[in-house]
Amino acid sequence: MPDQSDERERGGRRTVNVALVGHGFMGAAHSQAWRTVAHAFDVDPVPRMAVLCGRDRGNAAAAAARWGWAASADDWRAVVADPAVDVVDICTPSRSHAEIAAAALAAGKHVLCEKPLANTVAEAARLAGAARIAAARSGAVALLGFNYRRVPAVALARGLVEHGRLGRVRHVRARYLQDWLADPHTPLTWRLDAAEAGSGALGDIGSHIIDLAQYLTGHRITDVFGCTHTFTTERPGADGTPGPVTVDDAAVLTARMANGALATFEVSRAATGRKNSLRIEIDGTDGALAFDLERLNELEFLDATAPRGEQGFRTLLATEPDHPYLAAWWPPGHVLGWEHTFTHQARDLLTAIGQGTGAAPDFTDGLGVQLVLDAALRSAASGTWQHVPDTPPDPGSPT
Amino acid sequence: MPDQSDERERGGRRTVNVALVGHGFMGAAHSQAWRTVAHAFDVDPVPRMAVLCGRDRGNAAAAAARWGWAASADDWRAVVADPAVDVVDICTPSRSHAEIAAAALAAGKHVLCEKPLANTVAEAARLAGAARIAAARSGAVALLGFNYRRVPAVALARGLVEHGRLGRVRHVRARYLQDWLADPHTPLTWRLDAAEAGSGALGDIGSHIIDLAQYLTGHRITDVFGCTHTFTTERPGADGTPGPVTVDDAAVLTARMANGALATFEVSRAATGRKNSLRIEIDGTDGALAFDLERLNELEFLDATAPRGEQGFRTLLATEPDHPYLAAWWPPGHVLGWEHTFTHQARDLLTAIGQGTGAAPDFTDGLGVQLVLDAALRSAASGTWQHVPDTPPDPGSPT
Amino acid sequence: MPDQSDERERGGRRTVNVALVGHGFMGAAHSQAWRTVAHAFDVDPVPRMAVLCGRDRGNAAAAAARWGWAASADDWRAVVADPAVDVVDICTPSRSHAEIAAAALAAGKHVLCEKPLANTVAEAARLAGAARIAAARSGAVALLGFNYRRVPAVALARGLVEHGRLGRVRHVRARYLQDWLADPHTPLTWRLDAAEAGSGALGDIGSHIIDLAQYLTGHRITDVFGCTHTFTTERPGADGTPGPVTVDDAAVLTARMANGALATFEVSRAATGRKNSLRIEIDGTDGALAFDLERLNELEFLDATAPRGEQGFRTLLATEPDHPYLAAWWPPGHVLGWEHTFTHQARDLLTAIGQGTGAAPDFTDGLGVQLVLDAALRSAASGTWQHVPDTPPDPGSPT
Amino acid sequence: MPDQSDERERGGRRTVNVALVGHGFMGAAHSQAWRTVAHAFDVDPVPRMAVLCGRDRGNAAAAAARWGWAASADDWRAVVADPAVDVVDICTPSRSHAEIAAAALAAGKHVLCEKPLANTVAEAARLAGAARIAAARSGAVALLGFNYRRVPAVALARGLVEHGRLGRVRHVRARYLQDWLADPHTPLTWRLDAAEAGSGALGDIGSHIIDLAQYLTGHRITDVFGCTHTFTTERPGADGTPGPVTVDDAAVLTARMANGALATFEVSRAATGRKNSLRIEIDGTDGALAFDLERLNELEFLDATAPRGEQGFRTLLATEPDHPYLAAWWPPGHVLGWEHTFTHQARDLLTAIGQGTGAAPDFTDGLGVQLVLDAALRSAASGTWQHVPDTPPDPGSPT
Repeated sequence: MPDQSDERERGGRRTVNVALVGHGFMGAAHSQAWRTVAHAFDVDPVPRMAVLCGRDRGNAAAAAARWGWAASADDWRAVVADPAVDVVDICTPSRSHAEIAAAALAAGKHVLCEKPLANTVAEAARLAGAARIAAARSGAVALLGFNYRRVPAVALARGLVEHGRLGRVRHVRARYLQDWLADPHTPLTWRLDAAEAGSGALGDIGSHIIDLAQYLTGHRITDVFGCTHTFTTERPGADGTPGPVTVDDAAVLTARMANGALATFEVSRAATGRKNSLRIEIDGTDGALAFDLERLNELEFLDATAPRGEQGFRTLLATEPDHPYLAAWWPPGHVLGWEHTFTHQARDLLTAIGQGTGAAPDFTDGLGVQLVLDAALRSAASGTWQHVPDTPPDPGSPT
Repeated sequence: MPDQSDERERGGRRTVNVALVGHGFMGAAHSQAWRTVAHAFDVDPVPRMAVLCGRDRGNAAAAAARWGWAASADDWRAVVADPAVDVVDICTPSRSHAEIAAAALAAGKHVLCEKPLANTVAEAARLAGAARIAAARSGAVALLGFNYRRVPAVALARGLVEHGRLGRVRHVRARYLQDWLADPHTPLTWRLDAAEAGSGALGDIGSHIIDLAQYLTGHRITDVFGCTHTFTTERPGADGTPGPVTVDDAAVLTARMANGALATFEVSRAATGRKNSLRIEIDGTDGALAFDLERLNELEFLDATAPRGEQGFRTLLATEPDHPYLAAWWPPGHVLGWEHTFTHQARDLLTAIGQGTGAAPDFTDGLGVQLVLDAALRSAASGTWQHVPDTPPDPGSPT
Repeated sequence: MPDQSDERERGGRRTVNVALVGHGFMGAAHSQAWRTVAHAFDVDPVPRMAVLCGRDRGNAAAAAARWGWAASADDWRAVVADPAVDVVDICTPSRSHAEIAAAALAAGKHVLCEKPLANTVAEAARLAGAARIAAARSGAVALLGFNYRRVPAVALARGLVEHGRLGRVRHVRARYLQDWLADPHTPLTWRLDAAEAGSGALGDIGSHIIDLAQYLTGHRITDVFGCTHTFTTERPGADGTPGPVTVDDAAVLTARMANGALATFEVSRAATGRKNSLRIEIDGTDGALAFDLERLNELEFLDATAPRGEQGFRTLLATEPDHPYLAAWWPPGHVLGWEHTFTHQARDLLTAIGQGTGAAPDFTDGLGVQLVLDAALRSAASGTWQHVPDTPPDPGSPT
Repeated sequence: MPDQSDERERGGRRTVNVALVGHGFMGAAHSQAWRTVAHAFDVDPVPRMAVLCGRDRGNAAAAAARWGWAASADDWRAVVADPAVDVVDICTPSRSHAEIAAAALAAGKHVLCEKPLANTVAEAARLAGAARIAAARSGAVALLGFNYRRVPAVALARGLVEHGRLGRVRHVRARYLQDWLADPHTPLTWRLDAAEAGSGALGDIGSHIIDLAQYLTGHRITDVFGCTHTFTTERPGADGTPGPVTVDDAAVLTARMANGALATFEVSRAATGRKNSLRIEIDGTDGALAFDLERLNELEFLDATAPRGEQGFRTLLATEPDHPYLAAWWPPGHVLGWEHTFTHQARDLLTAIGQGTGAAPDFTDGLGVQLVLDAALRSAASGTWQHVPDTPPDPGSPT
């Protein structure tokens, strides 16, 4: 065998040990990202896939072996407390996000937490406060996993809005449609149990489009009217006995944004034929854009300052070297897949760690989304508009 | 010159004299339809473009000459009273619909009335009652101009729903977006004056998608939440002096339908880049469909009863001979335009007259749409859900 | 009845008597155009639908009655000789184009001739010469029915090329696909008999895309390689007995253009699922465009002089008032259909007559297309490249 | 730190040592695949990224470090001879494919070779023979890198054709368009030098669509007519001095296939606005399909056996669990990227190694493509049709 390659080839870059907690579908996607990021981007520090943690020792070990983690563990508290661990990546079900993230921040770790940040506003607020304190104290970076901000076409869209290419934003229309619950015979899972899942389609996929709307426009949602619905209220359980569905299948929101824009949101898990149809359109006085996750390499952009006869939505294939994240990848026209949103997320987290800066979306952004979801649910219950409080400028000391 | 062609060639078909009241944009479109219908379809009776009526004698005469009407007039009351007139086609601004239609029905005429039926529920209810009485008394046909029902692809969609191809309908999402008010400097017109126009985008274009939602699904909207918005509240008047805009630029509705479906509606005149973007999607347990007016020859249809790996939205080009209305037109793939919705409407009206049957949408359907619009406006004012009363089965005697 | 409208309302415009020869599918489309043109455009002269001529007296009379012609006839020679006839519109099968058109030109009539101009180069050359002589002698206008030049989006495309927006044209790729012969059991018709039809898909629909390629780029095809194919060589005749198919089902051409561009053409009547799929793409050094007849209101345009990261094909909805032909029609977004190409053609012919100018495409353009088709067939027979002679600058005296 | 994960967790699967030769763009893509494959698929054997080999020691070491190879080397002969190496993956420029692949096969290695297999038919034939002998002797697997067969939508398309869903194939139209040479000022590279690159667009990207046409239909190309073109014959060299371009910028082929189908191919590097636009359409008597690499998760399929009024191209989003390769990836609608074709290729190679079977496309398939390219070039030179010899059933002994 020829010369061994060497970490020194990496040019003196530091290494951080990453611990992944949780190994479901999201764990797989995060693993792929951690495995890939340093091979595509010049990150500093470089991540080391140190340990994967799950509740069941055997399952965790199997997942660790399959996905390339150096070790496995079954006690997240020990992992979070381990001085060798630098970054805690939380991919557990949402009800445990708050506890794990709080512990990790308290232990001085950098944290990447899957969305939603928490199941309640109170938890989210505590976490946002904890993250601010940790940042101030130890420079810990806390990043929330709204990965769709890292689709290159979405980042490109944000740049266009930021540079004023849309003028004043008037309309946002966003939807996230899936169909895995369209069939009334699909059985119950923990995701359909409010106690476990916190909420249904609204919290799960609605949070993505609320974040995108606020991110892309740069404006908060201030008022919301919500309507939730469950088409199939009873489904067969594991033993065949019917059990109740206690979360929403679908939700519709009408919202007003701080700049006067009017926004609409629709989410559903019963939208037949729509697999993962996140679509967002933004109209401004000087331009408009549209994005569809099922064609995630494309951004439709209309420049309304062009001569009227030459206006039209143009399809930007977001694979040019000067498009966000693309310099690291393939030549133009060689499209990326969904998974690289996580690779880009890992890159941005590592960059923030390396440069000692904050990263966005942070936990305060997550709290902001949570406040909208909470207002939406209150609205759905009351049948009236609800105001969305601004995220507290100074949360005081978290518990 | 060779042999003169002869009405007798038309095979003994009757003729009806049509009077058109109003000669704006809609008058032009209706004229094109009346001029065309008997040359494309085997209608019986055959229409004769007898007289065009407008308030200004000179303008009316010019429009009549241009569009091929045999005569012109400036007093609609005289036209409606003229025993030689069989059909009154009302294309005036909406505030005069009720008076003219009522007079025409009272005079025993068949009536085609542009949408919306009226500016208020009360007027609409009176007209619906009057139409029922006239139908019973003299067999008069009253048809409301929701012409988009006559897009072949839309009629094809209705057939698919009717034959159960979508299963149980769960979602309707409809929008009608235009951008002619996106520019804040666009001047005032009567359409932006509530006293003249009755309402803004909601009444004007919202009525179309509300009708389509009810028509395509076969279900009524029972409850509605509405939100209206005016982005530009002041615009330059004819003399350059700014004046107030008193109607909505945009509106968003959330609705529940009688069968439990959840429906959303958005209309805007400030949706930059969207010229005439009426789009409606319907999802059911067994299938889904989507239609876009800017590509009106196409219907997207997904059959969810196909093997899962072979499901996908298919684009039906609604130009086959067995598609609605198409046998009269060109070979497959030779697409139709927007204007033929009016030709088809004229055909269906003539057929109803000839066969002595009713036609749809009738004035009761128009009242149904008006009731939804009215509930939406009440909801927008109150910030709460509003129930939509069912159309009265027996309206009592109209005034 | 009120005041009779009056020709004088038309403002002193002249009238021309139009005679239509032939009443198949094309006759129907032309009739719709003649019926419509003066009601949409301010044409001068105004056409009068004087007489429709067909070989069978009864059929001609029925068609005349149905389509609104004042009279019918069964002897085209008499019609062409009739001093009252000003314009002869030839919609017969292609083998009779030459004889009728020559007679009409000789009689001093304006001529609109359906494509292809003739079945042979010799005939086409004679007609082109005759048209030049007639133009010089009597100002007769001769227009060839390449109607797709009159699709607004196509005319818009031509304008973009003409204004240099594509830079130097390098690639043309054009196709015209249909599927009405995909089924091997479809019976024989005269269109599948070389003696009757002259040629198959190549002549029938290939002529359209060859004309478009030359028109849109402004350059001639100089050399061509052709390949023709018949998938189904025998089909059931009227009596069920199989008979031979003697024309091509499909053809493929490779061509070089005068400016060095490389062009490809494909036509087929056996392209399953393609109803009327004429698609043409043109790439130049500074831009590119694409057009599809099944979405004929749209033009895709890419401006390669924009910053690289903002380049993309934009969809121009060719329904703006400043787009070609559109000022006469409906508001933006209210789309046109296939038939409007004939209305625009009628308008342009009438304008040329009124202004005493020539019209394009003229018979020399038709000869140019015929020369390409002829070279393609010679190439297909010889298996070698064939040069396309330029249209003769001075054809000498036609017979 | 918790328990170390262990190779034993991999369930007793074997490991193969992979050597990558070449580290350009293709090397990066292959590295990503080797790094990923065992984490997504249950491959047996499992690959070990043993050594990356390049001509320059420093560059090779840097690339090895960046992409995760355990070691680097600068002498491919030594690497190929190393008994520890099991698989040789050849990503060098095409002129060295033959020599390296022949040596690797002679040394009993499994070989993955990037396309094209070689620069000449003679080399390709020798390699095909060598591969057959090696397979017989040692069970060596030789796979050619036509990675687009491994796009899930393409594999799905192949399945549809194989199951007769298209009936008899009549038309193939394929194109592969890029625009990186559209600008005449783009400088010279080795790729534009015939001595280095063998050929231009035809060999580079044309080989992909020729392979796809033969693979998807299951039929060989028997006769071909070719035309090549160079738009820009002189470009600035490294020092600014103009130098000649000696390969084609674009090529067009017309071809006949063994089953009577007619096929067309177009490739270009000067197709403005087209980044990586590989598009292939196949029409058969019973159905049709279309695929576009820029939307590689989608397959358009039309079933012509459906009732005529319900036929239309449906968009299959190839992300369902029962679609090829998808069970290993994400939930429906979570799209894959271009790079995954290489991961799937690695999987299929490993599976073939593990199961002791052959893999496709093998070197004989590569020879088949080479024979078509060669015939196309001869045709372009002679201006006449050229027959494509069938791949020799028994090549005799390779040198």
